[in-house]
Amino acid sequence: MSMDECAPSSRRSLLSCLVGGSQVLGLAAVVLTGVWMGRYRGGFAWDGSALQFNLHPLCMVLGLVFLQGDAVLVYRVFRNESKRNVKMLHGIIHLFALIISVVGIVAVFDFHKAAKIPDMYSLHSWCGLATLVLFCVQWVLGLMFFMFPVASAWLRAMYLPLHVFCGVMLLVMSIGSCLLGITEKLLFSIMGTYSQLPAEGVLANCLGVVLVCFGVLLIFILTNEEYRRPPNPEEEALSVHFKTLTEGASSPTP
Amino acid sequence: MSMDECAPSSRRSLLSCLVGGSQVLGLAAVVLTGVWMGRYRGGFAWDGSALQFNLHPLCMVLGLVFLQGDAVLVYRVFRNESKRNVKMLHGIIHLFALIISVVGIVAVFDFHKAAKIPDMYSLHSWCGLATLVLFCVQWVLGLMFFMFPVASAWLRAMYLPLHVFCGVMLLVMSIGSCLLGITEKLLFSIMGTYSQLPAEGVLANCLGVVLVCFGVLLIFILTNEEYRRPPNPEEEALSVHFKTLTEGASSPTP
Repeated sequence: MSMDECAPSSRRSLLSCLVGGSQVLGLAAVVLTGVWMGRYRGGFAWDGSALQFNLHPLCMVLGLVFLQGDAVLVYRVFRNESKRNVKMLHGIIHLFALIISVVGIVAVFDFHKAAKIPDMYSLHSWCGLATLVLFCVQWVLGLMFFMFPVASAWLRAMYLPLHVFCGVMLLVMSIGSCLLGITEKLLFSIMGTYSQLPAEGVLANCLGVVLVCFGVLLIFILTNEEYRRPPNPEEEALSVHFKTLTEGASSPTP
Repeated sequence: MSMDECAPSSRRSLLSCLVGGSQVLGLAAVVLTGVWMGRYRGGFAWDGSALQFNLHPLCMVLGLVFLQGDAVLVYRVFRNESKRNVKMLHGIIHLFALIISVVGIVAVFDFHKAAKIPDMYSLHSWCGLATLVLFCVQWVLGLMFFMFPVASAWLRAMYLPLHVFCGVMLLVMSIGSCLLGITEKLLFSIMGTYSQLPAEGVLANCLGVVLVCFGVLLIFILTNEEYRRPPNPEEEALSVHFKTLTEGASSPTP
């Protein structure tokens, strides 16, 4: 059987399986973080104590990884909705991701302040804050370029491939920052017993592996040409100029 | 000016700048690792002591990051050489990367054995070893599929996009594993003073940032359609069947 004979329906059902798998992995990451912080680190609170710190990993995995991942997936999942609606959904999920991430960052700065722990010295903090700042910039630029008629069609076409590239890089950097945070937290809290692999260590290591698998699966879906949004004849007719420019530079549609 | 008017020569000189920048970053990462281990951690030896451990970060940054990165760049740099020669170079640089990485792994296992430190408990060790094993598998499969006439043209065409995707993922996982290693090493050796950001801490954090920049720049070069190897008419004529199949699945040429 040649690849051309692969029926579109079977490719679509493979896409459904892959998206389903990514959701299972993403939710598993959120649940594992919740169990780690809730069961092994004493639970959650907003009182400047270590229990407030515990909200930091949960918010980052939920906002910066799971929601950010789902926001980029909408173009693959809602292939037959109008482009405008999908774009709105993309922006709104990213906004939720941003708000939850900022809460997560405030939680840790607040805890540091109360416990008199210095800020921003570790590689995790450098990578994590850089990721969040670039995420904000990307969101504002996306809003300006693609939601409001600020930019010309030419500027939009120039920016689109860069927006897509930066989005994928931000997802990778988010996951990388989470792994650094997991390692830091484990060495700060169970340095003495980590090498005997207690339940908490295994759970946190597994969280790291699940985050890596979530990232690899998501990027596989995103970069696979076959899962791109099919061109819609009506929309194409309305944006011929834009399309011509984009095709000239062979830039991808998100 | 439309993007189509961008002269190929100016695009080529931008590619040269980007490749040059990646080499500066890659070499900077190797030098920073050498300075960190040489100046702040006592230097190098092969005697089962902590000085043998110091070879581990150096070998991994040199083999798994810098050489692996350069091995994937050859298809963008040598655009006018014969495909067979470029393929050979790609395989040979990867072989050097693999050998140096294995030396780096042996260095740390050997040190652990002498110092009676348990192996394979940390997230860094899980991610790092998984990356190295998958890197070996990828190299052997690449050799079988693309250097020896073991696989049919159809199988080659099927495997090519997966080989490219896994190659990029392996590069990202290698860099991620290095960042985890940096964090671990810092917390094991300067936990008490790290928060005051001593010179060693700043140097190691900067190494992490340089590694991230190296990865982002490399993936930008690799995923930019404009920098793909241009099709060679003679070679195309020799592999029409292969090309037709590849085009059918719209899979990329590495």
